[in-house]
Amino acid sequence: MKLTVYLSGEIHTDWRDQIKDLCNAKNLNISFLEPVTNHELSDDCGVIIMGSEEKKFWHDNKGAKLNSIRTRIAIEKSDIVVIRFGEKYKQWNAAFDAGFALASGKSIITMHGADHQHALKEIDATALAVAETTEQIVKILEYTIKGSLN
Amino acid sequence: MKLTVYLSGEIHTDWRDQIKDLCNAKNLNISFLEPVTNHELSDDCGVIIMGSEEKKFWHDNKGAKLNSIRTRIAIEKSDIVVIRFGEKYKQWNAAFDAGFALASGKSIITMHGADHQHALKEIDATALAVAETTEQIVKILEYTIKGSLN
Amino acid sequence: MKLTVYLSGEIHTDWRDQIKDLCNAKNLNISFLEPVTNHELSDDCGVIIMGSEEKKFWHDNKGAKLNSIRTRIAIEKSDIVVIRFGEKYKQWNAAFDAGFALASGKSIITMHGADHQHALKEIDATALAVAETTEQIVKILEYTIKGSLN
Amino acid sequence: MKLTVYLSGEIHTDWRDQIKDLCNAKNLNISFLEPVTNHELSDDCGVIIMGSEEKKFWHDNKGAKLNSIRTRIAIEKSDIVVIRFGEKYKQWNAAFDAGFALASGKSIITMHGADHQHALKEIDATALAVAETTEQIVKILEYTIKGSLN
Amino acid sequence: MKLTVYLSGEIHTDWRDQIKDLCNAKNLNISFLEPVTNHELSDDCGVIIMGSEEKKFWHDNKGAKLNSIRTRIAIEKSDIVVIRFGEKYKQWNAAFDAGFALASGKSIITMHGADHQHALKEIDATALAVAETTEQIVKILEYTIKGSLN
Amino acid sequence: MKLTVYLSGEIHTDWRDQIKDLCNAKNLNISFLEPVTNHELSDDCGVIIMGSEEKKFWHDNKGAKLNSIRTRIAIEKSDIVVIRFGEKYKQWNAAFDAGFALASGKSIITMHGADHQHALKEIDATALAVAETTEQIVKILEYTIKGSLN
Amino acid sequence: MKLTVYLSGEIHTDWRDQIKDLCNAKNLNISFLEPVTNHELSDDCGVIIMGSEEKKFWHDNKGAKLNSIRTRIAIEKSDIVVIRFGEKYKQWNAAFDAGFALASGKSIITMHGADHQHALKEIDATALAVAETTEQIVKILEYTIKGSLN
Amino acid sequence: MKLTVYLSGEIHTDWRDQIKDLCNAKNLNISFLEPVTNHELSDDCGVIIMGSEEKKFWHDNKGAKLNSIRTRIAIEKSDIVVIRFGEKYKQWNAAFDAGFALASGKSIITMHGADHQHALKEIDATALAVAETTEQIVKILEYTIKGSLN
Repeated sequence: MKLTVYLSGEIHTDWRDQIKDLCNAKNLNISFLEPVTNHELSDDCGVIIMGSEEKKFWHDNKGAKLNSIRTRIAIEKSDIVVIRFGEKYKQWNAAFDAGFALASGKSIITMHGADHQHALKEIDATALAVAETTEQIVKILEYTIKGSLN
Repeated sequence: MKLTVYLSGEIHTDWRDQIKDLCNAKNLNISFLEPVTNHELSDDCGVIIMGSEEKKFWHDNKGAKLNSIRTRIAIEKSDIVVIRFGEKYKQWNAAFDAGFALASGKSIITMHGADHQHALKEIDATALAVAETTEQIVKILEYTIKGSLN
Repeated sequence: MKLTVYLSGEIHTDWRDQIKDLCNAKNLNISFLEPVTNHELSDDCGVIIMGSEEKKFWHDNKGAKLNSIRTRIAIEKSDIVVIRFGEKYKQWNAAFDAGFALASGKSIITMHGADHQHALKEIDATALAVAETTEQIVKILEYTIKGSLN
Repeated sequence: MKLTVYLSGEIHTDWRDQIKDLCNAKNLNISFLEPVTNHELSDDCGVIIMGSEEKKFWHDNKGAKLNSIRTRIAIEKSDIVVIRFGEKYKQWNAAFDAGFALASGKSIITMHGADHQHALKEIDATALAVAETTEQIVKILEYTIKGSLN
Repeated sequence: MKLTVYLSGEIHTDWRDQIKDLCNAKNLNISFLEPVTNHELSDDCGVIIMGSEEKKFWHDNKGAKLNSIRTRIAIEKSDIVVIRFGEKYKQWNAAFDAGFALASGKSIITMHGADHQHALKEIDATALAVAETTEQIVKILEYTIKGSLN
Repeated sequence: MKLTVYLSGEIHTDWRDQIKDLCNAKNLNISFLEPVTNHELSDDCGVIIMGSEEKKFWHDNKGAKLNSIRTRIAIEKSDIVVIRFGEKYKQWNAAFDAGFALASGKSIITMHGADHQHALKEIDATALAVAETTEQIVKILEYTIKGSLN
Repeated sequence: MKLTVYLSGEIHTDWRDQIKDLCNAKNLNISFLEPVTNHELSDDCGVIIMGSEEKKFWHDNKGAKLNSIRTRIAIEKSDIVVIRFGEKYKQWNAAFDAGFALASGKSIITMHGADHQHALKEIDATALAVAETTEQIVKILEYTIKGSLN
Repeated sequence: MKLTVYLSGEIHTDWRDQIKDLCNAKNLNISFLEPVTNHELSDDCGVIIMGSEEKKFWHDNKGAKLNSIRTRIAIEKSDIVVIRFGEKYKQWNAAFDAGFALASGKSIITMHGADHQHALKEIDATALAVAETTEQIVKILEYTIKGSLN
């Protein structure tokens, strides 16, 4: 079985690279998809390409819509959506991705620290696995693909 | 046209009652649905009914799953989902509802203050209306049902 | 059989009232839905309710999104979508409604003059009936509901 | 991420070739699909293959249905539908494609001049990006695939 | 439980009335839907309402499309589709209804004589009940609604 | 909020009546649906109505298909599917209902004793609530409808 | 564009081979799928593999269900379903395939002689092309893939 | 035609290997998917990766959810689901897979001994083939892919 996995959420740590490197080292047959992880560019992409806006709302609106093309397509192409909630920012877009993924029939895995446990209880309740570390995520993916663990 | 509207999000202010009272005063043909708004009960409902848990994670998990029965059914029965982001708490479940509603083909209206504008840009970008006050929400509902404003 | 019929398209003639009056006179069990037919209000509704915009694009964007709440819900609630192409304006929104209705599994009936025949061939090709007059539309609805004509 | 992009709308300028050439030059992994762009052939294909018709309506009907096989399949195979509204003709089929694409869950990008802004407001309101030039379209596609711009 | 039942197929005997009368006598809570059963009118409805055609193909095409509005909506509103294959005519539209009903998730019941058994094996294989008489159909509906037989 | 609840599974105890009586006593607005609970009749309904079979396989096949009309329609009409696993029999049809309900987007509640816990772990893992008693089921339904408990 | 085309219907003439040979000669990128065309084997496959039946009904039922595995999967994998109605037999399974294909969102092309025109009017009314010869079918497929004709 | 086949059910005999070996020997173009067949690991995978639980219920819950990622994705990727009911254990998860597969539109084939015939009648009634041996399963797959038997 080949898997397509979307890595949603936090963009300020290297958790995606950790997962991809570990999966590569284990030769797991996984295509990883991810949002634009360049924070500044993802904020400004809309106005850079389609022209500036005076109001911050429309500046953001143009960028958010443009980013959603990539995000939406990626989630739809995925079998599994891994969602990382980090320490900083509101991260409402990560929670939004979780809701979108669930109603789209995707398998959801969350990754976050114990401090966010209560606030994430609704999302964790829809997840098929709740992890704290990238090592756990990789084991979950390995087990799902190979049906074994070493 | 009769509408069913789900009022998602913040449970610590009376914004739902304001909207319902104003819509009643205008005789708008709307059925309002809402989550359990008793904070303590919604946290503890699972263990109250189905037995206590030592771990906070499972205490929360039982409650969150039980609450999701009501929430999921209510969103599916709705034509419009209004999502209120307030001042307090992480409110990831509100963002989660937004994603679930979008992928379920519902019309989304958000309500929040200007201070949350940037953090909510992905969700606002999928909303068909972005409001700041309950009066605006009521006018949006009135206009949608009657096709006029007074 | 009870029908719900959405009347899409031209808003500057009284074709909707003609159809509704004739169907009422025949006691046909039909709920009619329709877009906002007040041209000025439908253009300005967004900024009236949610605040003005300097740019025409965003002025229009706010209004168009707000109108789409009503339009989208109405099409989804309908069994049949009647689309009237009149003499004036681009009427791209009417053609847009036709595409949306088709992909949503609705039965499409078009009404337009012979002069638009060639330009509307793609849409007529998806219609289950192509009419020129409101009398024909009413007979089509009568026949669909009652299975007879008088 | 590999994308499939349907290029809908205007067939009398070389905008499709511009986009394809620029994307090729950037080595973007995109499969482009498009309607039949030979105007005369797309009008007459039905009667050429399946026999002539005296009435213009059926002449057009046969051709439009035949063209819809290609168009419908192409939209369904696509991740993104780019819709170009040009200067000439009614272009109702382009607006129809937009509605069909939206209800089919595709990401919509529109391209048109400022003069069509008001008439296209309903369609632009559903678009995730609104462009004026082929260069902008290419940047949008590049950003969506690569998550970066150069 | 209330049921909506579509009675598809043969229009030259009174099997529909037999079923409806027997169900009424038993006070079963069923809404029956059916196609236009006036053979001549169903053949000519298109040209009567929308104008005559010289070619038989288009005469029939206009009528068949018009009839399909009623048929398609009725099947979609139904829980159960009963399909009667009689002695005469090709009855391809009845077999077509069966395929449409199956892919639409409806429960299919067929009614036909033993002489058609082999030719209908593909359709019978998708049916949840295969009957020969209207009495059997009524018992099947009674049992489905009430869960008992008298 | 009004709910429709399907009561699937064990037919040899009075758990359905207990739930219905308790819900009636609390005036909960619930429509209950259920399979045929007359064991002998549900085994023999097919041959009673449509003629006897020599082979047990076809005797059972006719009955099982006939019963599935009621079961399938009832699950589709439901918001919640409660599945009771009792002490006796294989009860594979109850587990089958659970899988069908899950893929149909229904909220699942299971009810069974602790002795079945391990064998039902896959089904419990998809349930939004796992109960042991009818009193718990009633409280879950009450809480879901009213958002409170007394 | 690559196409997958299912060739449904008549199995007693070589029309499938004609179409496949002509498409191969034109190097059209098409995967053809088809039902089992060995009449005797398709009648008896069920009992050959899974054991004999005394009753003709169950003999046929076992075979028809087994054949439907191939047929159903093939239609679902197809972009276009070509349905040939020949001179002999009832051919209800061909009409059934047409209904199933339509409700599954497939593009339908029919092929039959003028003598069947009236009896096939409901199915032709849902077809996007109605042909009489294999040469026409091949031209339709060529035009759909290449957008040109030679 | 290439097939993807999910082999669900019993994990304590070598029936999967028998089927795969026989299909390989016949060069059938089939991708086989299967659940984790290491009983102990599939019971404990959740706690091994994500941390131990004191209660057996949550121990099982974590494992069952984790296993469902693989199972759910595999069924969705499959054209056919073969479900083997063996001699031992409750096997409710096999019956659950059958229900999930049916509502997901998959073709179901069951394999079991005559002793389970009555208890499996509801599931057999939805199966397109009911087999007793792996040889029969292989012939069914061969016939489905090649349309012939040797």
